[in-house]
Formats: sequence, structure tokens, C-alpha cells
Amino acid sequence: MEKSGVTLNDVKAAAKRIAPYVRRTPLLRENLMDKKLKCEVYLKPEMLQVTGAFKLRGAMSKILSLTKEEQARGIITSSSGNHAQACAYAGQLLEIKAVVVVPENTPPLKIENARAMGAEVILWDRKYAERWKKVRAEVAEHNYTIVHPYEDFTVMAGQGTIGLEILEDLPDVETVLVPIGGGGLISGISTAIKATNPNIRVIGVQVAASAAYAASRKAGKPIAVEPTPTIADGLTCTRPGENPYPIIEKLVDDIVAVSEEDLREAVKIVGSDAKLVAEPSACVGIAALLGGNVSVRPNEKVCTVLTSGNWDIDMIARIYKKEHVDGIL
Amino acid sequence: MEKSGVTLNDVKAAAKRIAPYVRRTPLLRENLMDKKLKCEVYLKPEMLQVTGAFKLRGAMSKILSLTKEEQARGIITSSSGNHAQACAYAGQLLEIKAVVVVPENTPPLKIENARAMGAEVILWDRKYAERWKKVRAEVAEHNYTIVHPYEDFTVMAGQGTIGLEILEDLPDVETVLVPIGGGGLISGISTAIKATNPNIRVIGVQVAASAAYAASRKAGKPIAVEPTPTIADGLTCTRPGENPYPIIEKLVDDIVAVSEEDLREAVKIVGSDAKLVAEPSACVGIAALLGGNVSVRPNEKVCTVLTSGNWDIDMIARIYKKEHVDGIL
Repeated sequence: MEKSGVTLNDVKAAAKRIAPYVRRTPLLRENLMDKKLKCEVYLKPEMLQVTGAFKLRGAMSKILSLTKEEQARGIITSSSGNHAQACAYAGQLLEIKAVVVVPENTPPLKIENARAMGAEVILWDRKYAERWKKVRAEVAEHNYTIVHPYEDFTVMAGQGTIGLEILEDLPDVETVLVPIGGGGLISGISTAIKATNPNIRVIGVQVAASAAYAASRKAGKPIAVEPTPTIADGLTCTRPGENPYPIIEKLVDDIVAVSEEDLREAVKIVGSDAKLVAEPSACVGIAALLGGNVSVRPNEKVCTVLTSGNWDIDMIARIYKKEHVDGIL
Repeated sequence: MEKSGVTLNDVKAAAKRIAPYVRRTPLLRENLMDKKLKCEVYLKPEMLQVTGAFKLRGAMSKILSLTKEEQARGIITSSSGNHAQACAYAGQLLEIKAVVVVPENTPPLKIENARAMGAEVILWDRKYAERWKKVRAEVAEHNYTIVHPYEDFTVMAGQGTIGLEILEDLPDVETVLVPIGGGGLISGISTAIKATNPNIRVIGVQVAASAAYAASRKAGKPIAVEPTPTIADGLTCTRPGENPYPIIEKLVDDIVAVSEEDLREAVKIVGSDAKLVAEPSACVGIAALLGGNVSVRPNEKVCTVLTSGNWDIDMIARIYKKEHVDGIL
């Protein structure tokens, strides 16, 4: 039976399940950034996670919770990015068929990577809704299990393990900044953190070009937005996810949205100061501190989750050199 | 009394001493690199160390072994790079005066950084020997303690803690690749590893432009070389260090030297696959595997020490973009 929510115990159970397969990433204290970001800076560097992104935590949590019979039928998802790679990798590792439905304009390298890991790649419409129609059609035919990147509570529980690790390494953390795309990551993390210590602030960070959760909070109800091009292509979000939305409204203290300019600077600072290659989507938390979107005290312990590093390194080099980089829609 | 050698026990004692001040860096398994490097790849990412380089281990080991009286008189070193930053940082942290004698052509940013940490910076001759004369003159006048980057056995013991951590995380490691500049790092690491398990191969890697240790091994005696410009500016070495040389000759299985071309490619792979910003000097081990300078089996567990990430991020961006970067002499 499908779960209908996520609890601290679910997150703890996910942590046990996935431990043999995921990397326990360190928590990095970054003194060098304190002055620029006006607080005590800690980073959770999930670009060092297996597959270069936190997504493997959620995908593994889900796949390992399936029955043998369900596993034998295979899994399916739609994602152009890190979640697809995570599902493909998990499928390969556990010898489970993985199908990924990707937009037809997905960069060839990403398609090749997924295929190299044994995934079946279905090129489909650029429209999100059309791709999920295709997913459901495939499920009707093959009885695959859907591994949804952010609507699935067992996936959320997997992402929440990041919250447990932050609490383990820094029990007196005061504020945790978490990127919001679909909302699965922050749903899991805020569940883990708030159930442990409700006084820790959890702040969601979107990119202004695609800030459906920020707009919805202001409106007091879920509303759709029209995304504009952004370098944070991993955070595109036209409207809040059905399952994450109520969790986020209940648990997340504030939702802010950052500019493209602050985001570019954040990518560069993460490279020069923390020596980590981050994709722009990963850096919204740093951008929020840079841009003053979140008010912090100089001695406040602030942890920012850096989600991923899977961008073309030539493009990241352009950002380091302050050259122009097109936003993606 | 000055120590006259370094043992496994010295390294273990150093590990205890420095633990409160240095970061226990993780060991990263890099599946993505296996095909390119033709072995099972593990990385020890010391660019994630406090100050962005392994050097703090050695500097802290030394400074914490001094008497209160010696500490009160202050420390001095000569280095244009990571060792100077480490000494300045350690001085600031422990409230000990730190003096660094740097070449007059040192980039202003590095000088500023050292001064910002409270160090006294003495700009002096570009010639290595002249700078050490100045160090000795300062010692004669102020009775500072010298913290030599590679001749000092207590510094070596600190660097050797990297070896202990590799053994802890991967007891069945088969080959460890270690960059050689002055030779202090590999002296410490090979001491820790060979005393624990003499079957583990320890291989030193130099850059061909400055390969005094490789040439000396071939000659069977320490000989000088004339360095040519290289992007691995942290590994410049005209002749083997007096104290490291016999240790390295006794314990290190092989010494190889890599090309500038393989080094550039290595910097890029570390960025794109491991999501780590490494300076070229840090990447000689990866370059050696890329260039086939070290023979390995596909299922061989090979750990490469990535020493540091303190290069201008714009220059690293040029390497990512395969643009020309001048070597440094």
C-alpha cells in the first residue's frame, strides 16, 4: 500500500535501508565564507554523493522498499536530470529494470549516461504533463512501479536522511537552507529536523525565475507560475507538488527566491572557497545569504544543502570566468 | 631536541595532537573514473582540508609539539604557497606569532591572506636559498622556531596522518599515489603505510618539469635538476630534500613523472567527475594513471591523494575550458 505521509521514523528507516548504497557525506565548516555570508557557514556537499547528487537517497529508499515481485517488474520515472541518473544507477546496481522518460531535447550526454547504466530511455514531449501521461501509459502496459521525484513519500523519506546527518554532525545548527524544485527534498529534511528540534529554522530557497512555492505561500494557496529562463535548470517548478505542498506549508519557516546574478556569484564562491564544483541549482542557499534574502546573525550556525554538481564543466567554467551563460527554460 | 626520523608511532601521536584542529577528510570512491584510469579509483580530497590543503596537518603537528616557551617566541617558515597559509592559520588559531618569508613575486592575494590571518610577511628574494638565509637570520635575531615544509620530521608525521586515514577507510587498498614536491608528504604517508602493511604499493608522482626525485632514483644518488615552467607550481623541486630522500628511497616503491598535458586533463576530470576543485599540483596522481605512468589492474584499489585546491579559480576555469595557461617557474 502506498504511504500517505512521511514521519521521522520513516526517515530513520530509510537511512538504514539506503546506508549500504549511499555515501555518508561530511558536513563542512567553511570559515572562509563567513564574512561574505555574514554567519557561521556549514555546507552539506551532496555533489560528493554517488551519482553527483542527493537524488540517489530518495531513489534507493523507494526501490529498496518494493517487494521482490515489484522489483522484478521494474521501475519508471520521468526526469531529465539527476533523478533519472539516480534511478538508472540504482537499477543497474540492484539489477532492476529502469525506464526513464526524458524530454526530447535532453542533452545527448545525459541520455548516453542513462543508457550506459542499462536504463531504457524513452524520448518524449518537452511538456512535463505529456511525459507523465507517457509514464502512466507505460505503467498500464508493463506494470512498472513509478518512482516519482517529489510526490512519493518514500522518496521524500530518503531525501530526509540528509537532515538526520546534519543533526548528527551539528546538533546545535540554527538554520538550514534547502533548495526547492519539486519540493521532495525539503519535505524530507524538514520532517527530520522539525520532529527532532522544532526550534531549528528550515528555509526553502527557490530561484526567482521559477518560484511557485514562494508565490503560493504569499497567496495562501497553491498557485501556478510561468517560469522564465534560469541557470538553475534543476529547480524548474510551475506549481507546488500535491504531496509536498502541505508538508512545506506546515514545517518550513520561510520560502525565499534568489536572483540569477546572486546565483552566478554563489557558484563561483563555492568553487573558490569550498573547492566544490556545484551546479547553479545547488547554490540557491548560498545565493540567498549573499543577496540578504535570509536574515542571519554573524554567530548563527547556518547549514546550506548543496544538492548536486552535474552540469557541463565548460559551462561552470564560464560562470567562474564571469562569462555569459544562457538560462534554460 | 630535534627528532632525527619519523616512525608509525610519531604519526599516530601527531594524529592525536592535531585531531581537534584538522578535518578528517573522507575517502571518496569514484566509479565514474574507473574506465578512464583503468582501476578502482579512490580519492583522498585534501582540498577539503581546512585552509584548502593538507599542509595544516604538518604545521599543526609541529607547532603543537613545541614547548609553551617556544610557542611564545613564535614560528617562521618560507613558502609562497599552501604551507605559508597553513602556518599563518595555525598561528592565528593558537595565538602564536607566525612569520612567513615569501618570494617578492608572490601574488598579492596570497600576501593579503597571510596578513589577514595576522602573519608577518617578509617579501624577499625569488631564490629559494636566499629566502632560507633570511629565515636563519631572523631566527638568529628573534629565536623563532623554524617550521620547515618538508625537512622537519614532526611536520612529516603530521602529513603522515593522511596515510592512517586511508588505511582506516580502505584497509585493503593496494596502491597509493602521492604527489612529491619537497617530499615531506610522501615521507609521512609511506612511513604510516609501510609500517602497517608493506605490501601496499606507495608511488611518488612528480611533474616532469621538476622531477628531481625521479632523476635521483635513476642516478642512485641525490642529484639536482633544472626546473622548467609548469602549471604544478606547488611541486617545484630542484633537488631532493636532505631528510626526505633516504626515507623515500627506502619506502617508496616507484617514482614517476607526468606531462603537463596529462595534468591539464587530470584537473578537468577531477572537476567533472569528482566535483572537486583541484589545483594542478594536486592532480599528478590522476595524471599518472591517465598517462599510463603507473601500471594497474582493472580491479586494483588505487587511492590518489589530492593535496590542495588553492589556485585562482579563473585559471582553473581556463583549464576546464582547455584554454592556454602559462606554466610557472
